[in-house]
Amino acid sequence: MLNKSKVKPGYTRKLDFKQGHIEMAHGGGGRAMAQLIQQLFVNAFDNEFLHSMNDQACFPSSNGRMVMSTDSHVVTPLFFPGGDIGSLAVNGTINDIAMAGAKPCYLAASFILEEGLPLADLQRIVDSMATTAQTAGVPIVTGDTKVVEKGSGDGVFITTTGIGMVPEGIHISAEKARPGDKILVSGTLGDHGIAVMASRENLSFQTSIISDTAALHDLVAAMIATVPTIRVLRDPTRGGLASTLNEIAQQSSVGMMLYENNLPIREQVQAACEFLGLDPLYIANEGKLIAICPAKDAENLLRIMQNHPLGQNAAIIGDVIDDAHCFVQMQTQLGGNRVIDWLSGEQLPRIC
Amino acid sequence: MLNKSKVKPGYTRKLDFKQGHIEMAHGGGGRAMAQLIQQLFVNAFDNEFLHSMNDQACFPSSNGRMVMSTDSHVVTPLFFPGGDIGSLAVNGTINDIAMAGAKPCYLAASFILEEGLPLADLQRIVDSMATTAQTAGVPIVTGDTKVVEKGSGDGVFITTTGIGMVPEGIHISAEKARPGDKILVSGTLGDHGIAVMASRENLSFQTSIISDTAALHDLVAAMIATVPTIRVLRDPTRGGLASTLNEIAQQSSVGMMLYENNLPIREQVQAACEFLGLDPLYIANEGKLIAICPAKDAENLLRIMQNHPLGQNAAIIGDVIDDAHCFVQMQTQLGGNRVIDWLSGEQLPRIC
Repeated sequence: MLNKSKVKPGYTRKLDFKQGHIEMAHGGGGRAMAQLIQQLFVNAFDNEFLHSMNDQACFPSSNGRMVMSTDSHVVTPLFFPGGDIGSLAVNGTINDIAMAGAKPCYLAASFILEEGLPLADLQRIVDSMATTAQTAGVPIVTGDTKVVEKGSGDGVFITTTGIGMVPEGIHISAEKARPGDKILVSGTLGDHGIAVMASRENLSFQTSIISDTAALHDLVAAMIATVPTIRVLRDPTRGGLASTLNEIAQQSSVGMMLYENNLPIREQVQAACEFLGLDPLYIANEGKLIAICPAKDAENLLRIMQNHPLGQNAAIIGDVIDDAHCFVQMQTQLGGNRVIDWLSGEQLPRIC
Repeated sequence: MLNKSKVKPGYTRKLDFKQGHIEMAHGGGGRAMAQLIQQLFVNAFDNEFLHSMNDQACFPSSNGRMVMSTDSHVVTPLFFPGGDIGSLAVNGTINDIAMAGAKPCYLAASFILEEGLPLADLQRIVDSMATTAQTAGVPIVTGDTKVVEKGSGDGVFITTTGIGMVPEGIHISAEKARPGDKILVSGTLGDHGIAVMASRENLSFQTSIISDTAALHDLVAAMIATVPTIRVLRDPTRGGLASTLNEIAQQSSVGMMLYENNLPIREQVQAACEFLGLDPLYIANEGKLIAICPAKDAENLLRIMQNHPLGQNAAIIGDVIDDAHCFVQMQTQLGGNRVIDWLSGEQLPRIC
């Protein structure tokens, strides 16, 4: 534990968080970096692991099954309606852990900063991460900071890695979907992607749509406590619902049939998609999950989800079917069928 | 586990690893990304965890103490004498885990790729990571890929995160140095920094100095097996020996006295430093460690280190002393004393 009373004067010179900028020296391994770590990161993320100032965090582990997941975040702009790269980075990795049915325990955060980044922006991002992590109850216990020259990065990239523990008896994995299963989604589709896109393009509807970025581990805990038979959980981020379902179909060697009438999509998101020429099925979500469970448990699971603040708009949106081609299809509102293919290009770059 | 026989034709279109480049679509969450992950990452890192194609890896855990560490790697150039960003990223995180006396178990790797990066370069880097991880016996079990526009990144940034288990009875931490302890280093100083710097500047001596990038966990295991009383382990990367010792002095509230005569520095590195106006004490190392142990165990520890291929040039380089100012000092070859301060600016940017 760092003994603050013995810190040398030069070590504690105050960084200027109002006017200051990131300089190459903040990544140099010397005094400037130590100041940045101490005054910004350790201060904001405040926990015993970080105060030990080692290059790694040490904590007790127990018998069982553990999961680990990592995600780099490169979203632009850094701040958008409903969130910022900081909250996104914390929630995103918590969600990847939660999608194994696991309880997230610890996070690591690594920053790649561009020379010239205003310290005020970085502080705002770090404060957002701290608040998000604290709300979720998952501490950021270790980290790293690198700085690249102006023009070799883009403000800030954040890589978060999480570890968590899987409760006994829970075996959730993308290859477990079986024909006859029901497909559920926890809420409205496309909010995050459209919120970011609108703020990027300075569109007039930007104020009304906000990112759904949220940590889903509490919702997942409620779901598996009541329906431990859940077979698949996945958060439909990049590539949206369509890409995620195609991945699951592939891995489970099944087909899927969606019902367009059942898809929860906000009117404003639908309108924005039409305006921008986008398909909401391919738009990123950052606070939603797809669940696949045996048909007999679907209504029960739906009720649990709808009773949780993050699942109020949950819906049963489709069936897992037998299909050697692993196609994801949709029965449209007009009664036709169309294949919902993989996203083949890039619809919304740098959305997370 | 992905059932390859059932994969759709479009999913397995071959990427062109000779002429191809990274495109924005490779980070879009759609088919192009799935191809990149499958044909490059899963193929190279080949293990059951990755084949499950979930967004997280699941593995057994056991009672004890666990460590977690993360590091982003932004070294330039991507390839340098003795290594590349891939081997560096694997070894660097293994070493951060090992510096807690822990046995590294699993790695996560997250890539931020710049649009236009030749696929051939990426393949070379990924192959290097695969070889390094396999040699070290630490699998890369999960990962992520993001792509940023040309000019918003710099080729490739790699963030690796590792977890490991601490053997019972081992308690190594940077605040444990005590006056009277001995300070050891496992080999020559400055090799990595000078190798990278020389290749960056196209200097004529570049062929003779190679990076020391190496995974130190096996050396550490040998050390703690014989001398479990080791108090501090730390790898002197960015900021070099000087910055690392200042950090330890600060955290342990002690002073240090080094003996210049005892510092192992290659003649060529010394010459390059003089040529470039650099101080080898501040130059990054990527395959060296500092150990601090009770004086009575120092000779024994030195012998163990020297008997290991990665510790042949190990030396006892100084003493921990009582000093309220936490100064690191050095008795020079000429007999004088000088203070070895923190690195205050940036000596060698983007060295790791």
